[in-house]
Amino acid sequence: MLYLIGLGLGDAKDITVKGLEIVKRCSRVYLEAYTSILTVGKDALEEYYGRELVLADRDMVEQEADEILKGADVSDVAFLVVGDPFGATTHSDLVLRAVNAGIQYRVIHNASIMNAVGCCGLQLYNFGETVSIVFWTDTWKPESFYDKIKRNRAMGMHTLCLLDIKVKEQSMENLMRGRKIYEPPRYMSVAQAAEQLLEIVQNRREQGEELAMTEDTVCVGLARVGADDQTIRAGTMRELASCDLGGPLHSMIITGHLHPLEVDMLGLFAGPDGLNGLKMTDSSTYIS
Amino acid sequence: MLYLIGLGLGDAKDITVKGLEIVKRCSRVYLEAYTSILTVGKDALEEYYGRELVLADRDMVEQEADEILKGADVSDVAFLVVGDPFGATTHSDLVLRAVNAGIQYRVIHNASIMNAVGCCGLQLYNFGETVSIVFWTDTWKPESFYDKIKRNRAMGMHTLCLLDIKVKEQSMENLMRGRKIYEPPRYMSVAQAAEQLLEIVQNRREQGEELAMTEDTVCVGLARVGADDQTIRAGTMRELASCDLGGPLHSMIITGHLHPLEVDMLGLFAGPDGLNGLKMTDSSTYIS
Repeated sequence: MLYLIGLGLGDAKDITVKGLEIVKRCSRVYLEAYTSILTVGKDALEEYYGRELVLADRDMVEQEADEILKGADVSDVAFLVVGDPFGATTHSDLVLRAVNAGIQYRVIHNASIMNAVGCCGLQLYNFGETVSIVFWTDTWKPESFYDKIKRNRAMGMHTLCLLDIKVKEQSMENLMRGRKIYEPPRYMSVAQAAEQLLEIVQNRREQGEELAMTEDTVCVGLARVGADDQTIRAGTMRELASCDLGGPLHSMIITGHLHPLEVDMLGLFAGPDGLNGLKMTDSSTYIS
Repeated sequence: MLYLIGLGLGDAKDITVKGLEIVKRCSRVYLEAYTSILTVGKDALEEYYGRELVLADRDMVEQEADEILKGADVSDVAFLVVGDPFGATTHSDLVLRAVNAGIQYRVIHNASIMNAVGCCGLQLYNFGETVSIVFWTDTWKPESFYDKIKRNRAMGMHTLCLLDIKVKEQSMENLMRGRKIYEPPRYMSVAQAAEQLLEIVQNRREQGEELAMTEDTVCVGLARVGADDQTIRAGTMRELASCDLGGPLHSMIITGHLHPLEVDMLGLFAGPDGLNGLKMTDSSTYIS
């Protein structure tokens, strides 16, 4: 049996009791290590689970899946995923390979950022399409996520923005020379995401486009959701562009229409001026 | 401290290790019992947790919240919620009451139907607004959920449909006579939801409206997601209207544009004829 087990979002103890029991009895345990991170590393997980973990990076999962699945028809293999195995990233490819090889599989679900963002008080019902905001480079500044947010906002929906993660990235020079030397991992912060959005807003303004959001649009920054030191900050996009929410992972929400109960909840996470500090002049975001 | 603890979706062992530790040490433990159910009842949870649970129905949570929060400023109180505390139903009201009373709170997240539906292989990214399908009566047949699905499909998005739950419902006679006698709980099945949708499709067709979906639109029925006997069935809306997926809870997805990997995954859950059996003549739902 192949078990795909969600680890949740905080630390080693966010695994479910069922998941932990399975981890302890599997013959091999892999840790998917390229789409998300916990607040603790592989060592802490190994110590808590009492099991050795094999780190599975993108290359391994995509190119050496057979290695992961080896023997899973006669013994139990666990594939651990931060969050939920079918959350922000799906592992459909691994599942299909297993099924095609006659291997049974089972999913042990857990919290994902896709549902845990509800902790800021915005109702999951009212979210539209989820978008990813990628790191811009000097020469590559895609704006496609802006248009998706625009579409959601036109319908009054909130938008969850997943922020870019760069793990095992090679510099252009190392890539060209075929040297497997990797840059330190990078995780986009809420401030960086807000800055990129502000730049797009300014571009669109200069192009005379009707704006889907402005510097005053109410946004929510979330850091380390589910961890002991989780931090949530509600504020205008401009405010979030200069906030420091600490270490990764960060996510951001661009609000749509806000219902009164949602406004009350966001008030818990607003700056010292409270909700008034949000300067809700952006009337499209606020329905009382 | 008030702890809002998600129980996940299956049985007693789907609580996280962190959640279980907190449950064991809290002075009082409430079980929210009106928005969802596990495959096991209160007794099984009490036995596994080694704790007495107080059932909290809607009346209690809405009208006797002070009772739940009593003493939570000096001791620990747990409020258990099937799924995630901020999943399909938010418990913002209880949180706001706690904060206003000077009580700290903490959320222990878990899987929710809102993210666990990803197990059918449809990517959570590609879902639009979530809708609720309510039980029709002879005199009340709302169609508003159809229009939301229509809006999602126009953008190629999938729609998660949460199906109605009727718990502690009074008959009209008992209600009028003020008798607190309750009907047995009712849980909408995928077949019932599909039947209601087919009736709306037929109504709209007769009104000459351009149809957002037809009898041949690919849908996914899910039952008891996360439980040992979880059942997923992909098929046309017409097929789902006559399927029997067993006991509650059920959910349904109306697909939007399907990507090749999504089609492959749905194939695992299609009827004996496989994906061809889905008669993907509804071209709007399939992009190869």
